[in-house]
Amino acid sequence: MAATEESLRRNLAEMLSAVESQGSSVRALKASKAPITEIDAAIEALNRLKLEKSSIERELQSIVSGNGADSSVTREAFRQAVANTLERRLFYIPSFKIYRGVAGLYDYGPPGCAVKSNVLSFWRQHFVLEEDMLEVDCPCVTPEVVLKASGHVDKFTDLMVKDEKTGTCYRADHLLKDFCKDKLEKDLSISAEKAAELKQVLATLDDFSAEELGAKIKEYGIIAPDTKNPLSDPYPFNLMFQTSIGPSGLTPGYMRPETAQGIFVNFKDLYYYNGNKLPFAAAQIGQAFRNEISPRQGLLRVREFTLAEIEHFVDPENKSHPKYSEVVNLEFLMFPREEQMSGQSARNIPLGEAVSKGIVNNQTLGYFIGRVYLFLTRLGIDKKRLRFRQHLANEMAHYAADCWDAEIESSYGWIECVGIADRSAFDLKAHTDKSGVALVAQEKFLEPKELEELVIVPVKKELGLAFRGNQKNVVEALEAMNEKEAMDMKAELESKGEMEFYVCTLEKNVCIKKNMLSISKEKKKVHHRVFTPSVIEPSFGIGRIIYCLYEHSFYTRPSKAGDEQLNVFRFPPLVAPIKCTVFPLVQSQKYDEVAKVISKSLKVAGISHKIDITGTSIGKRYARTDELGVPFAITVDKTSSVTIRERDSKDQIRVNVDEAASVVNAVIDGQRTWEDIWSSYPHHSEESEE
Amino acid sequence: MAATEESLRRNLAEMLSAVESQGSSVRALKASKAPITEIDAAIEALNRLKLEKSSIERELQSIVSGNGADSSVTREAFRQAVANTLERRLFYIPSFKIYRGVAGLYDYGPPGCAVKSNVLSFWRQHFVLEEDMLEVDCPCVTPEVVLKASGHVDKFTDLMVKDEKTGTCYRADHLLKDFCKDKLEKDLSISAEKAAELKQVLATLDDFSAEELGAKIKEYGIIAPDTKNPLSDPYPFNLMFQTSIGPSGLTPGYMRPETAQGIFVNFKDLYYYNGNKLPFAAAQIGQAFRNEISPRQGLLRVREFTLAEIEHFVDPENKSHPKYSEVVNLEFLMFPREEQMSGQSARNIPLGEAVSKGIVNNQTLGYFIGRVYLFLTRLGIDKKRLRFRQHLANEMAHYAADCWDAEIESSYGWIECVGIADRSAFDLKAHTDKSGVALVAQEKFLEPKELEELVIVPVKKELGLAFRGNQKNVVEALEAMNEKEAMDMKAELESKGEMEFYVCTLEKNVCIKKNMLSISKEKKKVHHRVFTPSVIEPSFGIGRIIYCLYEHSFYTRPSKAGDEQLNVFRFPPLVAPIKCTVFPLVQSQKYDEVAKVISKSLKVAGISHKIDITGTSIGKRYARTDELGVPFAITVDKTSSVTIRERDSKDQIRVNVDEAASVVNAVIDGQRTWEDIWSSYPHHSEESEE
Repeated sequence: MAATEESLRRNLAEMLSAVESQGSSVRALKASKAPITEIDAAIEALNRLKLEKSSIERELQSIVSGNGADSSVTREAFRQAVANTLERRLFYIPSFKIYRGVAGLYDYGPPGCAVKSNVLSFWRQHFVLEEDMLEVDCPCVTPEVVLKASGHVDKFTDLMVKDEKTGTCYRADHLLKDFCKDKLEKDLSISAEKAAELKQVLATLDDFSAEELGAKIKEYGIIAPDTKNPLSDPYPFNLMFQTSIGPSGLTPGYMRPETAQGIFVNFKDLYYYNGNKLPFAAAQIGQAFRNEISPRQGLLRVREFTLAEIEHFVDPENKSHPKYSEVVNLEFLMFPREEQMSGQSARNIPLGEAVSKGIVNNQTLGYFIGRVYLFLTRLGIDKKRLRFRQHLANEMAHYAADCWDAEIESSYGWIECVGIADRSAFDLKAHTDKSGVALVAQEKFLEPKELEELVIVPVKKELGLAFRGNQKNVVEALEAMNEKEAMDMKAELESKGEMEFYVCTLEKNVCIKKNMLSISKEKKKVHHRVFTPSVIEPSFGIGRIIYCLYEHSFYTRPSKAGDEQLNVFRFPPLVAPIKCTVFPLVQSQKYDEVAKVISKSLKVAGISHKIDITGTSIGKRYARTDELGVPFAITVDKTSSVTIRERDSKDQIRVNVDEAASVVNAVIDGQRTWEDIWSSYPHHSEESEE
Repeated sequence: MAATEESLRRNLAEMLSAVESQGSSVRALKASKAPITEIDAAIEALNRLKLEKSSIERELQSIVSGNGADSSVTREAFRQAVANTLERRLFYIPSFKIYRGVAGLYDYGPPGCAVKSNVLSFWRQHFVLEEDMLEVDCPCVTPEVVLKASGHVDKFTDLMVKDEKTGTCYRADHLLKDFCKDKLEKDLSISAEKAAELKQVLATLDDFSAEELGAKIKEYGIIAPDTKNPLSDPYPFNLMFQTSIGPSGLTPGYMRPETAQGIFVNFKDLYYYNGNKLPFAAAQIGQAFRNEISPRQGLLRVREFTLAEIEHFVDPENKSHPKYSEVVNLEFLMFPREEQMSGQSARNIPLGEAVSKGIVNNQTLGYFIGRVYLFLTRLGIDKKRLRFRQHLANEMAHYAADCWDAEIESSYGWIECVGIADRSAFDLKAHTDKSGVALVAQEKFLEPKELEELVIVPVKKELGLAFRGNQKNVVEALEAMNEKEAMDMKAELESKGEMEFYVCTLEKNVCIKKNMLSISKEKKKVHHRVFTPSVIEPSFGIGRIIYCLYEHSFYTRPSKAGDEQLNVFRFPPLVAPIKCTVFPLVQSQKYDEVAKVISKSLKVAGISHKIDITGTSIGKRYARTDELGVPFAITVDKTSSVTIRERDSKDQIRVNVDEAASVVNAVIDGQRTWEDIWSSYPHHSEESEE
């Protein structure tokens, strides 16, 4: 909410200065006795700006006055405008639409597919190639044993309630959340105490057990929203799609809920491939599946999605990062645990400060937070609507050392798009235990180290005499003592000569005497140490990032005639589905030939482009490609030279035919900026065509 | 088999001329009294060539003499050598290896992943971008109704038998095939008649029904290979992984067995996106799943794999292709139906001839065959071990107009890697019927056409009197008559006044009289025609192509010392997992600095590369990267200049440090050939280092 307000204030400030400057222009035109049509046009523009200004003022007022209704209407309208454009231009399509679709499944249509492919290429460039990561590609079908070890079979659940008559399923927490929100927003008669209680429920909802959720649902009398029927008690529903591998029906399997496990189970081979050296990172891009109970929030909560995950393996005793200095000076919105608990907002913190003050647990985690920030903002995510939020203690798994989410603000609120977690040694240990294969690393010491080692030597003769058939159990229990237990025993045996000792496998105490064993510490030279690496895991929800990018890139502007609002996606060239269009101004063989020549040189330069030779007006053709976010349009209006139009400024320059492709290429490649191009070539006025 | 023989003969001819030419060199050296070391080296090379020649002769002899045993041993050894290298260098890894794996599931490790990503990028470039295809990306999870319409729920099965005691499952046709082959190869006592019968079974196996298979299994007394237990009768097993969508358990779904259906169900939107114009093609790259009964043949028959599919929609009355002329002059191995039936071999046929003679059904199918040929050979598939085999009548679905497989020869025999089928209107019609949404195209006529249209007008009063409650059924049956039936009826009614007419829905004949309906043909002006497009579908098994590429790229050569065989993959730069390595010759800060400078310029040029600063001998480092198929190695042996080594020739040139990246880039980009580079720069002798 705070950021929406902030961004509105910024927009308003910009708009005020635009109104002011346009006002001066009008006055100047009048003073200089310019032609009446010019003055009229300037006044018209001024009026449009004023209108836009008041609309921002209204929205801001509604937020400040605490009445979010207006702004939520605006948000809803904005979301609808984006969704309409996306669906009409086939950025996405509800899957299996002709069969009335399936909730939570979407197709990427041609432009969406191109955007996705660009985002993934950039991800590979930015992470895998620049960081020398080991990329792997594992199957989606996963046998049960793997997901048993990872904990997914037992714990990857949501709590569900059923309509007791129709059997329709709902997420229990969603129903409770909706009820509380609704009550707070619409029932003005509730007491302050009640309101506080409901707010408390909303804040702690995620921690509720099945019993607590069930109790609240009963207490509030919540019923099935569609039928008003009573609801069952909440019970866990596993979110994995289950299947069976092979024809026998005896090997249960699941569609993987994340790609990470494929990397963990390959740790040993990957470590070897990396020359048995740490740290190293492995990465995987692929489909993941979650059988959501009732998917909502359109493209943000889906049943199948593309994940891009990194598992960075590191020595738990040394989590420094060699390239940390490259990100240390970045500064962006961070939302540490403390600030959340004390009700403050996210604030700009230099990354170096966050790490050095221990807000971020370690350098490597900090390094990845910085790299994720660079990745997202280079894609075109608005840095003012991006924050890194630290998990609260209750959100974090018990084994995790620290965890941050890159959250992006959208019309649905702040959305978790990337999770960056220090998962310690949990995953490798879990698979070591289950598989019996040691997933460990070794540190070879440059010089052997002298370490004290605990040595327990049972005296079998004495033990045999004392315990006979139970001797084996007692010996095993003695040998299994840790250092503290053993040293305590040694002290007690030395002072008292004997002691009681509990043997688990016998389920009873036995009496151990001084002559039954020797306990000592011996110095030993060790040449290496064996340990389970920690893993730092940045995990990217590609579909969510793309959806937020759509919202951040979308805007509307009036058509030339002022009679309609036109849609634009301001994608940077990096993600734009098509980089350039080529338009012969009018249908003519000459122009078509020129267009073909240009197309050929664009192809050689590897620039994805389209030719549109329909006779549609050039203004309409521009509008059509603005809506796809195409950054540049080359219009063939002569046979010797052509114009290049930039999407957002609508500025046009004139270049020779044989230069066109290389000029576009230079801007797309980032060798030159459009401003630079704009100042180097003759300008072209669009008056005549649009 | 024929092609193996053919390729051996070619190799032998090449080797003979190499031996001859090396022989002349030796004689010339002796005549010119060259230094004794030089003569010795030449003689050594000659001996190596002779050895290789005899090995080829032996292999050829074993094939010609009809005794395939030797060659199958060779093939098996070759396959094992490739597999060892692939697995040791992590091109692939059996999935979930630490849990003893799952048959038919493999991971791509780092180099395999890079090869796959290169192959897919090139596919996108070669097909999607160059042909302006509409790419889509649909989910793997698919509701049952879609696969019911496509026929997969009912027909996507293999016949299975079970070990009656242990329940172990086998593919029935595999058991029968193994039995026949075994008998033919190992039992020399069988009669000529029996041998002919077994060969006949092998040839027609694919057409056997469950009953026929069961009968043969009984007749031959085939039992479970592992336990010798009796087997069940064969029964169909559906090869789709089944799952359930949502929590209710009421929406069955499957993991898609192909990506094509996602395109078909979107036809309407895609046609609209394309401006309601035909032809156009849509494409999809993605995972597909087949729950194989008992996967064999390693990477060639797996349970999850990447498909790349194209659905090219075309007017069935006009299957010409605008870019057909670009492929018309290609000539490659084709294996038409006729040649297969008459026992001939595949032969080189110019594509234009195959289309014009009607061997290939139409231009568009021919165009795609040509494009597939270009795609595969540019990847590095040996054109002598690639053939296009036409489906026999019994292999083809009843609706298909024509179908060709791109088959690549590997150690497993000829492997189907790409299917190119003209599936006519089958798929769109099936989804139209099931969904009720018309998946059709329109052709607008430039001028309206005058067509005769059949008009059937029932006289309801007469029909009502005659048939009362059954009137509706009779009217529907009358209106459903096609033109011929209606005109026959008209003639008969005019001559006889009445006739018997079968009404399906009543399951009986009724008597139709002349006064009950009027049948006529009326001229009508029509402005367009509505039709279901035909679809031409090239479908690529990416994993199979990659595996065959591995085999075609693999060779061994003796180490310098001659004491071991070194492995090499001769990948073209396009597919090589890493394009270039940088080696400081010895460990030194100076050299490391130079290596970093070069690495930076390689990164700017976008060339994937690795630096290896281990102190290992340069020869070992070359061998290590040859085994990954890295085409170029830059060795830093001075601070001003470096050497560049080409993998297959082992030739080295010397270039200035600041030129190194651009020289490598020029060859990788295809701007220059290595031969060209070789003739422009000073050569460097490797003597000193390897």
